[in-house]
Amino acid sequence: MSNIKPSLAKGTRDFSPLEMIRRNYIFDTIKSVFKKYGYAEIQTPAMENLQTLTGKYGDEGDKLIFKILNSGDFLKEPKKKEFDFNAPENSNQLTPLISEKALRYDLTVPFARYVVMHQNEIALPFKRFQVQPVWRADRPQRGRYREFYQCDADVVGSDSLLNEAEFACIYHEALQKLGLRDFTIKLNNRKILSGIAELIGKPELIVDMTVAIDKLDKIGLDGVSKELVERGFTSADLEILKPVILLEGNNAEKLNSLSQVLAHSETGLKGIDELKRVLDYVEALNPGLTATMLQLDITLARGLNYYTGCIFEVKTNEVAMGSIGGGGRYDDLTGMFGLKGLTGVGISFGADRIYDVLEELGLFPETAMAGTRVLLTNFDAAAEAFALPLLSRLRDAGIAAELYPAAAKLKKQFSYADAKGIPYVVIVGGEELESGKPALKNMATGEQESLTIDLLIERLQ
Amino acid sequence: MSNIKPSLAKGTRDFSPLEMIRRNYIFDTIKSVFKKYGYAEIQTPAMENLQTLTGKYGDEGDKLIFKILNSGDFLKEPKKKEFDFNAPENSNQLTPLISEKALRYDLTVPFARYVVMHQNEIALPFKRFQVQPVWRADRPQRGRYREFYQCDADVVGSDSLLNEAEFACIYHEALQKLGLRDFTIKLNNRKILSGIAELIGKPELIVDMTVAIDKLDKIGLDGVSKELVERGFTSADLEILKPVILLEGNNAEKLNSLSQVLAHSETGLKGIDELKRVLDYVEALNPGLTATMLQLDITLARGLNYYTGCIFEVKTNEVAMGSIGGGGRYDDLTGMFGLKGLTGVGISFGADRIYDVLEELGLFPETAMAGTRVLLTNFDAAAEAFALPLLSRLRDAGIAAELYPAAAKLKKQFSYADAKGIPYVVIVGGEELESGKPALKNMATGEQESLTIDLLIERLQ
Repeated sequence: MSNIKPSLAKGTRDFSPLEMIRRNYIFDTIKSVFKKYGYAEIQTPAMENLQTLTGKYGDEGDKLIFKILNSGDFLKEPKKKEFDFNAPENSNQLTPLISEKALRYDLTVPFARYVVMHQNEIALPFKRFQVQPVWRADRPQRGRYREFYQCDADVVGSDSLLNEAEFACIYHEALQKLGLRDFTIKLNNRKILSGIAELIGKPELIVDMTVAIDKLDKIGLDGVSKELVERGFTSADLEILKPVILLEGNNAEKLNSLSQVLAHSETGLKGIDELKRVLDYVEALNPGLTATMLQLDITLARGLNYYTGCIFEVKTNEVAMGSIGGGGRYDDLTGMFGLKGLTGVGISFGADRIYDVLEELGLFPETAMAGTRVLLTNFDAAAEAFALPLLSRLRDAGIAAELYPAAAKLKKQFSYADAKGIPYVVIVGGEELESGKPALKNMATGEQESLTIDLLIERLQ
Repeated sequence: MSNIKPSLAKGTRDFSPLEMIRRNYIFDTIKSVFKKYGYAEIQTPAMENLQTLTGKYGDEGDKLIFKILNSGDFLKEPKKKEFDFNAPENSNQLTPLISEKALRYDLTVPFARYVVMHQNEIALPFKRFQVQPVWRADRPQRGRYREFYQCDADVVGSDSLLNEAEFACIYHEALQKLGLRDFTIKLNNRKILSGIAELIGKPELIVDMTVAIDKLDKIGLDGVSKELVERGFTSADLEILKPVILLEGNNAEKLNSLSQVLAHSETGLKGIDELKRVLDYVEALNPGLTATMLQLDITLARGLNYYTGCIFEVKTNEVAMGSIGGGGRYDDLTGMFGLKGLTGVGISFGADRIYDVLEELGLFPETAMAGTRVLLTNFDAAAEAFALPLLSRLRDAGIAAELYPAAAKLKKQFSYADAKGIPYVVIVGGEELESGKPALKNMATGEQESLTIDLLIERLQ
């Protein structure tokens, strides 16, 4: 066995007991809301056939997919094909000859594969959620990891805008439950962006247009204007765009203005109509939300080529942080696997960022309840013999309990309880053995009282 | 985008909503017991540095580790080293030059790495559990997958036999909770096996001896004897071994017999003493268990080279199935990473096999409660407008509810509820709109009754 100083693979993380309790708290909260809205959990394998993944994320994405080396004599295949190993820059050509599997890059493509493969078993509309890690060979940096969890809910096979409205409600309910109080659920629609590009007479430049105006938050109107010019827009175009980008007022006012601006764009008007209907649904489900946290934002684009209808993004206003969630409607999710005409809409929660936000705001609930609740001390054989049945009684009562596994000094046992965040210690010494009343010590306050076994269990429950 | 018929990577599985509910039921049950005994959850990354894993699982194991191809121009390194790609059988030599990461092969080695890397943060004894997938490039077959979950609990830094006793109790409690009623927790001790090998005067053949006698269940005494002879034991050896292998009686009787047989083996007597103390602890914690389900089995070995003290294996007697759990004590878990002298003991639950057992015995609880509880029908805009606030009220009451997302024929909506296993449907048609009393239909019995909203919510809670 090698005797090396161990390290983590670059960009990956261990999660300690405390971190796991907190991460599970976030995931469990979000999952419980997904379930309440009728979403069911699925899981897909970490490894997919390479051909399932390649070509789905663009050239840059393909490079970031972790490929798995074939097992056994993997050079056999390239040798058979007389592959020229020493030609320059031929790693890319070799890859498909020595790798046929890869790690999941996101949860959406595996979900599309799942829907196609299980189309005869699932009832449409199919509402699924999925919380699993994904892997990307990105350069690691603060807040960006090579392994991270995605937390997605999607519905396929329903074009009803009720789905969009419910996703707004899901965001609201889950983030509220996590203790966030001031956040914005931004809403846009790809069709409105198309309408605007039509209006200017440059529908072919829609991607350039949206990439630029999506940066309004960061670089301001001057920056956006500069970028638009660089991307081929004239100053006449800018005059048309400016009032649209700077649209003000509440949601209804914005939609009214847009109706006038886009009066001649069929697509644009359809986008407006969709947004109106989503807002109406939300108002019926959660009165008041449309007036406060749900805000129309025409500059929102988020990977525009992907989305075809509504687009979501969620930001907290309590901490400086990028978006903590996003999603939208995409037509033809499963077309890439030969099943045409299935529309879908989905959202994602940014669990790592939500973790950082909750930590910064001190919103994680007291975790003591989640770990061991009480430690029984262990001084000698007699005390241990007294403690063992008590230990069983505590556990039978549903109380997470430990007996220190060997006789040791009290100080050492207290340190153990402290380090593990155990809130109570039961002390069984000579005195307690005689009276049959162990002492219960509250580790936070230092208070200590002698109690009968029944009272002690009652106190800890 | 390629338009291919999608498939799963060989040896991997998707998990459907029903399978997820059942798998979560198993994992949640086991986790809840781990927690009650003071074990805390950790997670480690799917990817480890290749050198963390190689050399830990033997040559055969090393071959089964999935290696991850380096990103970018991975041929650069072997070219720099003037690697001879076309030499025969040189895949193995190339691997470390083009791969520096690999997929987790089990949870034990990453746990050892975790303990060494976090030794200054953790309090010893460190009791952790971990439920995560592992990957092995095994040939897939019925019941053997290339991706499967392991479900482990280990404690390091305590040589107290209380830990062993508690693991027996954990097995008992978790399997009971899962509804199993007839199972056997087999217990042995490596030191007893060493003592027996000493007794024969062939301590160097301990592995051969145990590999053979471990097969008693499968090939009977004749088969074992034959194999022992093939492995270098004489008929005189067999005469000594036979009564030990065929040891009968209850645990105390077996230990008494062994005390006589191994009277001159210090190691053997230590093993007997350890087993006695484990049995005493179990008796104190769970009176009766040692007389019924916890059984001494001298033929039990389980990867003997690994274990140094007690060895566990769990079998159900209700279904023909291999072991559904196993574990034991290993000295020097972290020595491979330079941290000497830490002893550990751990157990594992075979979640896939437990799944199959519960399914075969029909022990999964009614799953209807876990998914959507009620579907609201959708006929037209008026019915939908009536249903939306009801939908919110149901969810506010904690009831998982869905509104069918578009107007559709009743038959289609019932089919959807059926396919998803939704137990109740609320019908809102013209009549119900007029009376304000929707009809609640029980999908199992077909019964239907008109109820006020308040009563309806009460009925569904």
